[in-house]
Amino acid sequence: MPTIWDQRYAQRVQRIQGSAIRELLKVTEIPGAISLAGGLPAEEIFPIEQISAVTQRILTTQGRQALQYGTTEGYTPLREWLAQKLTSEGVRVTLDNIMITSGSQQGLDLLGKLLANPGDPLLVESPTYMGALQAFNPYEPAYVTVRSDNDGIVTDELEPALQQHPRCMYVLPTFQNPSGVTFTLERRQQLIDLAGRYDTPIIEDDPYSQLRFEGEQLPTLLALEHARQQQNGQSDGVYQGNVIQLNTFSKILAPGLRIAWIVAPAEVISKLTLAKQGTDLHTATFNQMIAYELAREGFLEEHIPVIRKLYHERRDVMLAALDEYFPDNVSWTRPQGGLFLWVTVPENVDTVQLLTDALEHRIAFVPGVAFHPNGGGSNTMRLNFSNVNPEKIEEGIHRLGKLLHARMLL
Amino acid sequence: MPTIWDQRYAQRVQRIQGSAIRELLKVTEIPGAISLAGGLPAEEIFPIEQISAVTQRILTTQGRQALQYGTTEGYTPLREWLAQKLTSEGVRVTLDNIMITSGSQQGLDLLGKLLANPGDPLLVESPTYMGALQAFNPYEPAYVTVRSDNDGIVTDELEPALQQHPRCMYVLPTFQNPSGVTFTLERRQQLIDLAGRYDTPIIEDDPYSQLRFEGEQLPTLLALEHARQQQNGQSDGVYQGNVIQLNTFSKILAPGLRIAWIVAPAEVISKLTLAKQGTDLHTATFNQMIAYELAREGFLEEHIPVIRKLYHERRDVMLAALDEYFPDNVSWTRPQGGLFLWVTVPENVDTVQLLTDALEHRIAFVPGVAFHPNGGGSNTMRLNFSNVNPEKIEEGIHRLGKLLHARMLL
Repeated sequence: MPTIWDQRYAQRVQRIQGSAIRELLKVTEIPGAISLAGGLPAEEIFPIEQISAVTQRILTTQGRQALQYGTTEGYTPLREWLAQKLTSEGVRVTLDNIMITSGSQQGLDLLGKLLANPGDPLLVESPTYMGALQAFNPYEPAYVTVRSDNDGIVTDELEPALQQHPRCMYVLPTFQNPSGVTFTLERRQQLIDLAGRYDTPIIEDDPYSQLRFEGEQLPTLLALEHARQQQNGQSDGVYQGNVIQLNTFSKILAPGLRIAWIVAPAEVISKLTLAKQGTDLHTATFNQMIAYELAREGFLEEHIPVIRKLYHERRDVMLAALDEYFPDNVSWTRPQGGLFLWVTVPENVDTVQLLTDALEHRIAFVPGVAFHPNGGGSNTMRLNFSNVNPEKIEEGIHRLGKLLHARMLL
Repeated sequence: MPTIWDQRYAQRVQRIQGSAIRELLKVTEIPGAISLAGGLPAEEIFPIEQISAVTQRILTTQGRQALQYGTTEGYTPLREWLAQKLTSEGVRVTLDNIMITSGSQQGLDLLGKLLANPGDPLLVESPTYMGALQAFNPYEPAYVTVRSDNDGIVTDELEPALQQHPRCMYVLPTFQNPSGVTFTLERRQQLIDLAGRYDTPIIEDDPYSQLRFEGEQLPTLLALEHARQQQNGQSDGVYQGNVIQLNTFSKILAPGLRIAWIVAPAEVISKLTLAKQGTDLHTATFNQMIAYELAREGFLEEHIPVIRKLYHERRDVMLAALDEYFPDNVSWTRPQGGLFLWVTVPENVDTVQLLTDALEHRIAFVPGVAFHPNGGGSNTMRLNFSNVNPEKIEEGIHRLGKLLHARMLL
């Protein structure tokens, strides 16, 4: 029943929607349920003691600054540290190329605010990160999708999409959420070249690339774009390319701090800063200081391998369980890092219906439709392995395999 | 010179503007400068030890939860505590009426997203809080202004504005930023009645009402609206009125934590929650826990009187200095609480020009034009007394008085 408020909301509210699937998944908060639906890091390895120690030190020595209003761009030492790290890795940037955000989700919102124009195309992969669609939706873009395969976005199909002049392109090239797929080097280079030719900004969402368990580290789109600009003599040295990169401490330190960052040309950072000022003034100073203190001490270099090792084990358990319990005509990705893998079942099985069965048996996953802005993916699903212990992964895949067998016989 | 990025931004970016005045004011970061321009709390009374103690306890006993992703609505115990407090004060609400935000600025952004429609009227006081305009601007409202006098918004002039069917009305009824003015009880009641008659949602921004130094506490618009609905038999008990209230821990605890909250009808909170999910997923769990632990221990009841006492002294010093050093034909408000007061100089003096003189003498304030979305206020200015010690207030007003005398002779 419409209420008085429904008449008061702005037009764009039509695009601020709840997800029926998200509602369904609330069932998994029941104790004893096994959820492969989440996207949470493993909290049993959060570095609580280290955070506690730096927190005390910050409050003792810089308490007033930590608790006072701060600048919108972010805590200067943290921005400088990030700029130096990136420069040492080959992408020449200064602190003017870095803005701190309240999680990468805020970066997505601010980029939507800056770049998405009502009714104009915005290019995304299919499937793509659900949260990005949720961030962009209120800015009313028309999504143009390009499908992905096991090598990432299908660059052969990219050119017709770019000819529609999308305002920008949003991609997750490494251990993608939801699919776990990583773009090959060849695809990355093709993507950069094409986007350069059509002058289309790329938003590279890169939360997982430090969580690689195996295989070779690939250059980011940011790094490839920097190289392209240098080769073309379009750059005086400091980065000023088409790629805007989102990065975060959520997966390598702790998401509850809500500290992430954007790398972009300085003029884009200026605009983002004005947009952020209106949005939340600034990100909590205290939390930025915690991330900075741990980063500069080199703690992340110790801690990231611990995360990698744990997720690697869990991925292996999940892959082995899938081999054992899932029917033969089902396939899945084999991610070399990150938090997720992606299962494709026969076309006659609808994973939303499978989820209904699964929830009755206290097991959850996210059906693939949630990740397709223009439909499709009804025979796919996302499984998370980072936040579930090996016993539960094994048991969960076992239960899910049985249900899948049953569904396939219907 | 326009750059390639200028062609890529969405239409709304025209409204995401920097402020020339804000740029000017960066000069006051010079050591030795006296800034009456800020809006910062006094950091010398931040309760660093208490925050340090609860932080340790939280990390020791609830570390995993504190550092993990949390729910978008906010930390349940904090929402419950706020709901109980408000209920005990006479506005019957449950936790479904409360959402935690990353500072009140985020509340403004989310309400802009929900309520402001491109080109449609949005009613504000003149002057009004600059940050609210910055939050609403990207959602492209057309501002309709109603002027304020020493009793608050001039309700006699409200009806013609309401007849333009604004999407909503944004007001700051208690110790307004920038003017320091408080709406009288009569004006509050008239405002509620008129908004009720025209069915116009009211956003009540209420960051300062707990910082009253003198005079009688007045009912909030939220409380009056709740009473109106009960009298009209429109309510079954739980709040469901037209007023949406923004409140914050920034001025009574510490702004660097970025913890604030919105009170609204449950159905509006649901929409706000969906909007927030796309915007930053959730507010830092850790910081919410810190605010909650201090609140439930009753620490704020001890701490708020300390803040009141300090700001009261500083306001008195500023009022005395104004009496002593400012020309006779200059007037100012005498706020009974909050952080700011408002000065009106003769009409031939432009306070932007006065600021130019002032910055040369290392003294700063915010010229009134910044707070008027549709122009006006060129002979007004905002002075802050919360973040400056008494010696500097005295010295600052002395210098400013001299410059003002000089300008008036031009």
